[in-house]
Order: sequence, then structure tokens, then C-alpha cells
Amino acid sequence: MAQKPSIPKGTRDFNPEQVAKRNYIFNTIRNAFQNFGFQPIETPSFENSSTLMGKYGDEGDRLIFKILNSGDFLSKANTEAYAEKDSTKITSSISEKALRYDLTVPFARYVVQHQNEIEFPFKRYQIQPVWRADRPQKGRFREFYQCDADVVGSQSLWQEVEFIQLYDTVFLALKLEGVTIKINNRKILSGIAEVIGASDKLIDFTVALDKLDKIGEEKVKEEMLGKGISEEGISKLQPLFTLSGSFESQIESLKSILSTSEEGLKGIEELTFIHTAISELGVNTATLQLDVTLARGLNYYTGAIFEVSAPKTVQMGSIGGGGRYDDLTGIFGLKDVSGVGISFGLDRIYLVLEELNLFPETVSKNVEVLFINFGDKEALFSLKAIKELRAAGINAELYPDAAKMKKQMNHANKRDIPFVVLVGEQEITSNNYTVKNMKTGEQDTVSLEALVESVKG
Amino acid sequence: MAQKPSIPKGTRDFNPEQVAKRNYIFNTIRNAFQNFGFQPIETPSFENSSTLMGKYGDEGDRLIFKILNSGDFLSKANTEAYAEKDSTKITSSISEKALRYDLTVPFARYVVQHQNEIEFPFKRYQIQPVWRADRPQKGRFREFYQCDADVVGSQSLWQEVEFIQLYDTVFLALKLEGVTIKINNRKILSGIAEVIGASDKLIDFTVALDKLDKIGEEKVKEEMLGKGISEEGISKLQPLFTLSGSFESQIESLKSILSTSEEGLKGIEELTFIHTAISELGVNTATLQLDVTLARGLNYYTGAIFEVSAPKTVQMGSIGGGGRYDDLTGIFGLKDVSGVGISFGLDRIYLVLEELNLFPETVSKNVEVLFINFGDKEALFSLKAIKELRAAGINAELYPDAAKMKKQMNHANKRDIPFVVLVGEQEITSNNYTVKNMKTGEQDTVSLEALVESVKG
Repeated sequence: MAQKPSIPKGTRDFNPEQVAKRNYIFNTIRNAFQNFGFQPIETPSFENSSTLMGKYGDEGDRLIFKILNSGDFLSKANTEAYAEKDSTKITSSISEKALRYDLTVPFARYVVQHQNEIEFPFKRYQIQPVWRADRPQKGRFREFYQCDADVVGSQSLWQEVEFIQLYDTVFLALKLEGVTIKINNRKILSGIAEVIGASDKLIDFTVALDKLDKIGEEKVKEEMLGKGISEEGISKLQPLFTLSGSFESQIESLKSILSTSEEGLKGIEELTFIHTAISELGVNTATLQLDVTLARGLNYYTGAIFEVSAPKTVQMGSIGGGGRYDDLTGIFGLKDVSGVGISFGLDRIYLVLEELNLFPETVSKNVEVLFINFGDKEALFSLKAIKELRAAGINAELYPDAAKMKKQMNHANKRDIPFVVLVGEQEITSNNYTVKNMKTGEQDTVSLEALVESVKG
Repeated sequence: MAQKPSIPKGTRDFNPEQVAKRNYIFNTIRNAFQNFGFQPIETPSFENSSTLMGKYGDEGDRLIFKILNSGDFLSKANTEAYAEKDSTKITSSISEKALRYDLTVPFARYVVQHQNEIEFPFKRYQIQPVWRADRPQKGRFREFYQCDADVVGSQSLWQEVEFIQLYDTVFLALKLEGVTIKINNRKILSGIAEVIGASDKLIDFTVALDKLDKIGEEKVKEEMLGKGISEEGISKLQPLFTLSGSFESQIESLKSILSTSEEGLKGIEELTFIHTAISELGVNTATLQLDVTLARGLNYYTGAIFEVSAPKTVQMGSIGGGGRYDDLTGIFGLKDVSGVGISFGLDRIYLVLEELNLFPETVSKNVEVLFINFGDKEALFSLKAIKELRAAGINAELYPDAAKMKKQMNHANKRDIPFVVLVGEQEITSNNYTVKNMKTGEQDTVSLEALVESVKG
């Protein structure tokens, strides 16, 4: 009758070591968020379907996990769809709720719903899981955490400046060196499209440009031609393909390309402001780099666009990203609320820290002392000491059974517990504790006070 | 076009203050779990339906949230059920996954699936949300957190002793006095049913007995009669209805009632062991109380049963519970693994602390310093100081826009920010900072070092 247990594909169990390592990253990010003045909110795991559907494009709609209505849901199923056996059409009539797909749309919903309680500008952070019915593959899961910080209610570019500092602060705290923060501006992309006469093909243009690293200049040009961008327009792009050198010299090249585009020049102005401020303030470990091919999330970004790359020594996609969106809450009826935010990719940061061996050795809060159980009388005596150790902040436990000594010592070894305490007849009589250092093998018989001290040390 | 945003009934948004208060409870419980040697695991939010269905009774099956399969799910729907429009029958063919209903069944699944990696006895804790399609009402939600600690792999009664200490430790840390930990033993209930000749009616018997507090002795007897328990049997129960006095005297009464039941006497022996140990070890704030009418979770508990009541001054149901189950992993094919565990009810503990005003004043990690923004030059100068403050562990931020001074000061007031810093032409020239204590109104112009010190103090 027994079932062989397993979990759904794309999901994961986390063992104690993995939980501890993940919490190390979460706590580091959380501390930095708070240090920068962000405040936490949490939203429900599932939202009304109407809140989520239509916000992420057709592909997004397909990838949203829908929750089946309770009770006799078929009785309310759309009759036509039922007759036609049309899965897509029937869905909204048998499923009213859906699992959150990201943290941005629920945040927009939260801001609109609670707008009268919120003091703007509102700096919020949110660290919660999201779910996507994506095809699972290496580093891509159906349940994963997002760590987002956003500010809504101000168009100030100082916020972009602060987000770069925030990234830098987190990666410094994680001791992760060599991170690159790529920055671009949606207005620059719009400006370029305008200059080459392809304003109506902005998406096609940026999708092609985005592939420059992967497929090279010639193929990018071919793709653009294929999408109907003119030869003449593409020739104007030439300087883009060879943009290099310092942030400043890239900006100079862009200025000449974009001299006729008001929007493009505005984008340059914004980038320059941010770059100048960061040069003045300094970064500790990350590098800020202009990347004109950066075009993520074009659907809703309107200003700055960020993407963070792991150190070059590690094969890994982006470990974070974000940008400025000028009208996110408009979909829920609150117009003209500008927002800007960034996100940290927990799973990829985890893989990077693992590969570079950057997790602190003490990351998992292990038990520090195991008391060997020699019988009920000894156990009771031990528990009195354990109570004192715990009150002193030391994680301690009693082996629950009076099993063979060897078995208990093996248990301590397998769990990497640094100290073992042995309490027998003699110890009880003399009110002492024999403590064994499992690394050095040293053994000593001491008072309770000395025991607390030696384990703490 | 705009939708009026809302969230599904039975779910909640948490604002920054609520998140901070919830985290205060989570962290207190987590620290105690670790202090007692428990290690964290996490499991996926959704499991294969086959893992969950049939584990919580018919009612439970109905309350489990099912996730609709992706893609053209109707093409694989059970043909017969589709023709009959039978919602119950069709479910398993269009939904393969379901949201976790509690943490116990996923834990059992985890133990069986990872049995070769686990070092037994395994002390695990788990703090994650669960979902139930219950009718929402005060204090009952469709999404809520459970905080569970369990040990599997040992039958030692020392674990029951430690769980009582663990409850006591958590409530002491939360400064919640007057909590009662009720204890009973399933074997005592079985023994009583045996003695009154109602072994085959154990559930009916305990369900009725459980209502003693609410409906009184006479109605309980009526209900038992109605369920077919004999007059003679019920008369033997008489001492139960008047059990009172100390733990010891109640045990003596039970001994005489159960003198002919081997199982009942075993239950008394276990209770006595636990009570004696706790008397020796002492509890700090909670009271241990024998409650023979306690019968929760009878379906799987086999030994000790715990339930924790809030202080009598607060109207609140149980704020925790647990017990011993001798064969939880059997459902997944791993026999003879004994387990014992307890759970904390986060939402109810929250309401109790709120009502008794027991949350620390400093529970939310607010911003400590807001820098007023007088323009870009001043902002840049301010951000240099903010960087230093943050590095010193002080949560600080810049108002993003050079808005009117009054608006910025109001912002600080509304957010309860204790210090405001003003940087103008003069301060930049003299490399000083004017800091205002928002509570006292005191204002002082100081160096950066002095600023850090005064805000820290």
C-alpha cells in the first residue's frame, strides 16, 4: 500500500545545511534593505486571478499556477467552454485564485489597495516565494524566492544611485568580489530606435541587440534586417557595436549618435547623473558598467535598467536586476506613481557562493554539546546542566535513549557536534561533568560553571 | 478599465509593523528550537496530490487547495466524470498537485524520502505557511504559518519532558506569563474506554468527553448514551467528572479507575515519569496540568497529548499543541519510526501578545535617521555621511526629493523617525551636520563622528 514518496518536478526539499545557507543570504540582504531604510511587507501566496492575469503577457498567463475552486466547481463551469472542452476558455470559470508569479504586481496591488495608509515615498522590501509553471532546468525552479526592494512615489534619480550602493553593500557583506552592475536606460534605447527610424519596431530592435554577446554583430544585423529595419538605419548603429572604453567615453559616443533625439539625450543625462554620483560616493566591491545592449523587462521599464553579473570566474547568468517604471500602479487605477526597484536572485547567488566557497564555516547553527545518556538518573542530572547551558545561549541536547556508548558517540560524530559530555555515577556524586572535545579528543572533568565557559570559548 | 484591487477572502496583507511583530515571534521560536538542538528543514509549498489526499479524512480532503494542471488539462480529464459533470471524481485527473495542508505529512514524506541521508534520532523544526480552504472566521485564515518541532526515531519519554521545557522557554522569552500546558495520554483514554466496555467506541467516547467544559456533565452523559455506551459503563466514569486537585491526586484517582486496564496503567506510568521529571527540572512560567478530557488529533496520536492554553485573562483557544505518534511514516512505507512533536500557533500568539501589550517597543527596525534634501549638492554631501552611518549599522536614508522642508519634516514625523539631519550651505562649508532629536526638539551641529555617536546612543 505504501507510496514511494517524491515531490513535484521543479520543487525542492531543503535540508538543515541548505536552509542555514539560504538564511545566511536572506539575512544579509534583509539587513542591507533595513540599513537603507526599506520596510518589509508580505502579501498572500495566492491572489485573485484577475489581479495577475494579463500582467505578464500571454506566455506569463500560461505559466501562472491556477488554483481549482473548492466544492462542486463544475456546476459553475462556463457552459460553452465545457461543451467545446476548451481548457483555456474554461479556466476562469473553475479557478478564481492563482499563485503569485512575481512580487512586483502584488506590490502594485498592495500600494493601490492601501494607498491611504501608506506614507509616500514608500520604500518597501519583500522576500517571499513565487511560482511559475516553467519547464524546470538547471537553476530554474517552479518555486523560488524573490528578494525585492522598491521605492514608489518619487522620480528622484538619487534612488537609482542608492540602489547601486545597495547592491554593492550586499555583495560586500557576502564577500563576493568582482560583481558587475550593468546599467542602461530605456530612453536611450527609444532614442536609438528613433534615430534609425525604427520607433515602431523598438521591441524587435532591442531583442536583436540584446543578442550581441551571444551571436555577434553580423547575425544581429541580419535579424534586424529580417524584422524590417532599413540598411540605412542599421548603418547608423555601427558605433554601437564597437562602443567600448570608459563610462565617460561611451557616453560621448552615445551623445553623437543620439544628438537628434530629445528622449535619447534625456536618457544620457540621467545616466550621467547616476554615474557621477557613484564616482563621488565610491563603490566597495562592485563595478558599474554601461551596457547599451541591456534591454530586460522592456514592457514596463521607462528609465534606468539594471542587471548584475556574477564574477567572470563563475559561469552564471544574471544574479539580480531591476529598473525604473513610471506607471506600475496604473493597472490598478492609481496613476502617476513612479517606482524604481531591484531584485536579488537567491538561487543563483547561492550557487555562486557555493562554487567560490564563500559561505562562512559557522553558517549552520549546529548543536554545540551532546550529553551522552547512561540511564534515567544520569539523564535527569544532565538535563539540569543542559538547562543552564541553554540559558547561557549554548545549543545543547541530551541523546534521548540510553543506547550503547559507541552508538551515541557515532551520532555526535556524524552530526559534527564539537563537544560531548559524559555524566556517570562518579560525576553525579562529585557534581562534575566530563567534557570531551571531539576534534582534539581532549577530555576534562569540570564544574558546571567551567563547562559553560569551556564550551562558550 | 482599472480594477478595484482586493485579495482572496481568508488571506492577509501584512504591513511593515505587522511583519516586524510576526518576525519577533518567529525569531523567538526559532532561537528556542535551535537552542534545544532542532534543525530546520523546508519542503515545497505544493506536494503531489497523492502525498496529501487521504491523510486528513474526507473533510481534510475537501479543504485541501488543488492546483489545476497546466496546458490542455481537459484533454486528460476522466471521461466518465466529465460526462457526469462530477467535480469530486474529475479532480484527480485535472489536478496533480496540491498546496500543503500542514507540516506533519510533508515532514513524514521528507523523512521517508531522505531516510538514507538522515542521522536518527532526527530533531527537525519547520516554520512555513500552510493552506486550508476553510470557512474564514476570526482567527482562522486560509493561509497561515505553522511552527513545528518534532523528533523521529526514538521512543524516549525524555523528549516529552523536553517539549514541555521548550514551550516554557518560548513563553518565558515572549514574557507571556500564565500559560497552561495541558497534558494527557492516548493510552489513558483507551484504557478508560476499555474499562467502560466501549473500546469500539473510542472516538465517540472521546469526542463526547472533550465537550465536558462546554456542555457540562449531564449533556456529555446523554451524548454517550446516545452513541450506545451503556449506563453501567458511564457510571464507572463518575470519578472522571470530578477529577481535581493536584497532578498527583488526579493520578491516584485514575489509577483506581484504570486498575484493570494494562494500557491505561501504562499511560499513567508515562504521565508520572514526565510529571516527576518536570517537577525536578522546574518550569519558569508555564503550569503543567493533567487534563483527562484532552483528546485532540486522536487519529494518529498514540501516547502523550499536549495542548497549550493562553493566560486566563485572554479569550483565546489553544495557542499550541502536539503529541506522540508511533507510526507516522508508515503511510509512506517506513514502519516503526516513533515520533513526537509540538506546534506553536503563530496567529493566536500574535493576538495574545497584542492584547496584553507584550511586543517590545523596539520590535520594528525603523529608520533611525532621515536626511533632509535641500538640493543635489547637499544630497551628495548627505549621502557621504549616510554611507558612514550605514556602515556603522545605523539605518539611515535621504529624502529623495528636494521638497518643501515642512513636507519632509512631516514625513519624518509620520514615520516616527527619531532623528533628522539638516545639511545646508553652512554645514557643507564647515563639514558639519545639524541633527535634530524629533522627540525632544533639541538641535545640535556636530561633526560626522559625533553624529554617529549621538544617533547610536
